[in-house]
Amino acid sequence: MNDRELGCNSGGGQFMDRGRMNQNGVVQPLLTDLYQITMAYAYWKSDKTDDQAVFDLFFRNNPFHGEFTIFAGLEECLKFLDSFHYSQSDIEYLKQTLPEGIENEFFEYLGNLTARDVTLYAIDEGTVAFPRVPIIKIEGPLIIVQLLETTLLTLVNYASLMATNAARYRMVAGKHVKLLEFGLRRAQGPDGGLSASKYSYTGGFDGTSNVLAGKLFNIPVKGTHAHAYITSFSSVGELKTRLLKHKQTGIMEDLLEHAIRHRQMLSHVLDVSTEESSEGELAAMVSYAIAFPDGFMALVDTYDVKRSGLLNFSAVALALNDLGYHALGIRIDSGDLAYLSCLAREAFEKVAERFKVPWFNKLTIVASNDINEDTILSLNEQGHKIDCFGIGTHLVTCQRQPALGCVYKLVEINGQPRIKLSQDVEKVTMPGNKSAYRLYSADGHALIDLLQKVTEPPPAVGQKVLCRHPFQESKRAYVIPSHVESLYKVYWKSGKICQQLPTLEQVREKVQISLKTLRNDHKRTLNPTPYKVAVSDNLYNFIHDLWLQNAPIGELS
Amino acid sequence: MNDRELGCNSGGGQFMDRGRMNQNGVVQPLLTDLYQITMAYAYWKSDKTDDQAVFDLFFRNNPFHGEFTIFAGLEECLKFLDSFHYSQSDIEYLKQTLPEGIENEFFEYLGNLTARDVTLYAIDEGTVAFPRVPIIKIEGPLIIVQLLETTLLTLVNYASLMATNAARYRMVAGKHVKLLEFGLRRAQGPDGGLSASKYSYTGGFDGTSNVLAGKLFNIPVKGTHAHAYITSFSSVGELKTRLLKHKQTGIMEDLLEHAIRHRQMLSHVLDVSTEESSEGELAAMVSYAIAFPDGFMALVDTYDVKRSGLLNFSAVALALNDLGYHALGIRIDSGDLAYLSCLAREAFEKVAERFKVPWFNKLTIVASNDINEDTILSLNEQGHKIDCFGIGTHLVTCQRQPALGCVYKLVEINGQPRIKLSQDVEKVTMPGNKSAYRLYSADGHALIDLLQKVTEPPPAVGQKVLCRHPFQESKRAYVIPSHVESLYKVYWKSGKICQQLPTLEQVREKVQISLKTLRNDHKRTLNPTPYKVAVSDNLYNFIHDLWLQNAPIGELS
Repeated sequence: MNDRELGCNSGGGQFMDRGRMNQNGVVQPLLTDLYQITMAYAYWKSDKTDDQAVFDLFFRNNPFHGEFTIFAGLEECLKFLDSFHYSQSDIEYLKQTLPEGIENEFFEYLGNLTARDVTLYAIDEGTVAFPRVPIIKIEGPLIIVQLLETTLLTLVNYASLMATNAARYRMVAGKHVKLLEFGLRRAQGPDGGLSASKYSYTGGFDGTSNVLAGKLFNIPVKGTHAHAYITSFSSVGELKTRLLKHKQTGIMEDLLEHAIRHRQMLSHVLDVSTEESSEGELAAMVSYAIAFPDGFMALVDTYDVKRSGLLNFSAVALALNDLGYHALGIRIDSGDLAYLSCLAREAFEKVAERFKVPWFNKLTIVASNDINEDTILSLNEQGHKIDCFGIGTHLVTCQRQPALGCVYKLVEINGQPRIKLSQDVEKVTMPGNKSAYRLYSADGHALIDLLQKVTEPPPAVGQKVLCRHPFQESKRAYVIPSHVESLYKVYWKSGKICQQLPTLEQVREKVQISLKTLRNDHKRTLNPTPYKVAVSDNLYNFIHDLWLQNAPIGELS
Repeated sequence: MNDRELGCNSGGGQFMDRGRMNQNGVVQPLLTDLYQITMAYAYWKSDKTDDQAVFDLFFRNNPFHGEFTIFAGLEECLKFLDSFHYSQSDIEYLKQTLPEGIENEFFEYLGNLTARDVTLYAIDEGTVAFPRVPIIKIEGPLIIVQLLETTLLTLVNYASLMATNAARYRMVAGKHVKLLEFGLRRAQGPDGGLSASKYSYTGGFDGTSNVLAGKLFNIPVKGTHAHAYITSFSSVGELKTRLLKHKQTGIMEDLLEHAIRHRQMLSHVLDVSTEESSEGELAAMVSYAIAFPDGFMALVDTYDVKRSGLLNFSAVALALNDLGYHALGIRIDSGDLAYLSCLAREAFEKVAERFKVPWFNKLTIVASNDINEDTILSLNEQGHKIDCFGIGTHLVTCQRQPALGCVYKLVEINGQPRIKLSQDVEKVTMPGNKSAYRLYSADGHALIDLLQKVTEPPPAVGQKVLCRHPFQESKRAYVIPSHVESLYKVYWKSGKICQQLPTLEQVREKVQISLKTLRNDHKRTLNPTPYKVAVSDNLYNFIHDLWLQNAPIGELS
């Protein structure tokens, strides 16, 4: 891999593997909103360089009308911290861009700034997360911590949204159906496409069509051919090669001849006239089978699935069988997928029986036209014979909710809590430096997430904890946890990544393990039960005292 | 700019300026679907290396329930062609990824492949485009032209969607309201954010908050501060500096003292008690004003716009005025934007009059909370005093339709037309190598886009042309154009970019000029009139003959 392929940041801290991917070169300190830098100057100018701040990164609502979110993007955040540094050309650009009169000392200060003094706590990547429980907590000097905001949000927002979307598709498709991400061409920018491939794999997909994602992230890549391949042939006369070596004997044989012979017989078995079916399609499939005799997977809907595609595919697959090869299956990219997949499966069963090729029963049927969560649910209801979905647009653009809406809020400065009030109670921030725990029942299910002040002792197994709704006074519950999980780990401190980072594969497993701890009613598609997020009694009182202290008292006259 | 900042492709052909931006390093030949490469092998294996193909890149529907689309992304496509080359590590990766048994000669072939033999025709970037009229047409050897598909689609789809979205916001906001793109944190990946900034500027926005976009594309960047800045101060006691130099006299004065004095008087003028308003907010604004005395723009909704923000802002702005500086304005980021903006304008008018500061009337009011096209329309109806909108999530994610859906279809091979049939008439492709013309009326409005076979003579000014609906036999019209525009230019040929590429600024102007040629009824938000796209009589017959030739005849029994 060279620099051309991905602009590269210098790799890693203590736990950064050598083999780990470099970050996309556009992830750099200037990938931020200008106001972060104007604020940095105003802080600097106000002599707040040594102020210590705590920020929470969290979301307020789960996406897709669901009741859970998968946290992803952490590794990218850590790489960003690791490489955080304004280049000389960044500084030059800022000098031109910021208003005149800014002291040179400020630019020197920026030029020397790193994330060394920052401490980052986070939930593990791939874990189920819930509204208002910070997924990342960052402590450190106000200026640098503020400067990280936009980039961290950018890295977490789409990654988590995508992983969550993919996990939802996985849930509705079931464990045994393969899911492939086919969305690159519809993604929001080239890097949007790469992130989509990566985080859909994290969320539970089996692979992608995106070759660069395969190369960069070591994800399985899949793909066969497009309609253009089929339409590029119009007759068997165009075939310049018809010969294929027999897998066992090594003798060259005429694959087309075999295919034409089978096609004749198949036309009776499948009750389709050979004249109706496309000769160009036959030629295309023969040529494709010669190229990939062990990996023959063909698109059957270019002309007509029933009257052309299935006949030609079966003829070529049987021809391959004569030469010792097993075809893989078909892809259907249009039409009524439930009906066509059943039709195809029925055809394969007939062929299996009549031609004594039992493996024909197991041919893979891939479907790939405009599929979303609802389509899969509806196909499940109708009954279908699809083994694999290729999903593009709706997956990668997260059509149902194209942004997660994570925010980054100041909660403490120099040991003093800060609260951001709002007319909208949901938007009031939870002040102060907090710990987060997940309390589990005896059967291993997550019961509740509990936020406390960091100074409080953690909840203990077998002991009753009073859990309170953060804003509704009367909503309270005693919880006796069978297991208590402290949600935060220190991931970055003193300029180093301080946890062994999991591989993408491990994060992907984590997603499924973490989802298993959730009760099914939290995960169902229709009207899922909200998972409870609570605060300790101590934190409850702290929040509400501070709220009253900060909210202006109106005057009516 | 160094390599770290953006992985760089070697810059350009004849017309590629030295100063022009490098492309994001992830834009490379492997940024594609695997099936392009498996198809390439199958074509190669079938000895189709010298086949000549023509592909059309087009969309089938305008986005956002509109009747026009802005074409964008062309420059990126040309850069991609210019740098198209598989690196050694790409080839190694493909060897591992493709099935075994692929001849080494194929990998050598790939290793030597460039886009030299490709010819690319396109509509000008920034031009209004319509469904089914190809925006790009590519001719060349089948294999390379097929290999370009996914990457070109990725580069055009989101760029055009974004530019169209931005142009729509510009239309509803009117000419005089400023529009800023604030979406980086909600964008789909870091590069999604950069594309959003670039193409929203193209579509008619005035600037972005994204600093890297500013640096890379030379777009104006804007921004002030966040709520965190305000909440980081809790009392005036925290101000370590209160002094600011008088702009004219150069004497240091205590800005806080001035502000407190004005605040007292303002509390009567604005009918707000100073005790209700936040002291922390006052401190934050004073410190921010000291940092940016000539660029003081403050967020006024952290606590309460009416009871705190406007009072504190006005106090600090008047204090600045005492020292010879003019404040810029305020930003409102929550609440009822119509009401609050009117309230703010009213307050400013009162202050202007009572304090004899007429420029207070002209203070800028920026609004920035969850704004979309409908919000702006509704604000327009209600009446508002907003001068500038900062727009994030809905703009960059294109919430209403997150993908454009461009496709890339084979229309001719070795001089033979190809048609892709579909049950869905809308999805039938227009076969053959075509020219496209836009016919204008005497008053300068675009009347119709007309596709013809390339062999037909172009329509002539003042001469009657029969324009036919491509699929509905009876829909025909004679058009006598006052001006005929040939839509395609050759942009890439013989390995070189062969047009002087416009700057981003020029593309941005082109958008507005091109939109002006559209009648208003095509552009209106509610039920716009569809713009007509037609085919020549010759092309009509050609399409329908080919269609009948290719569609299988069913048999009922």
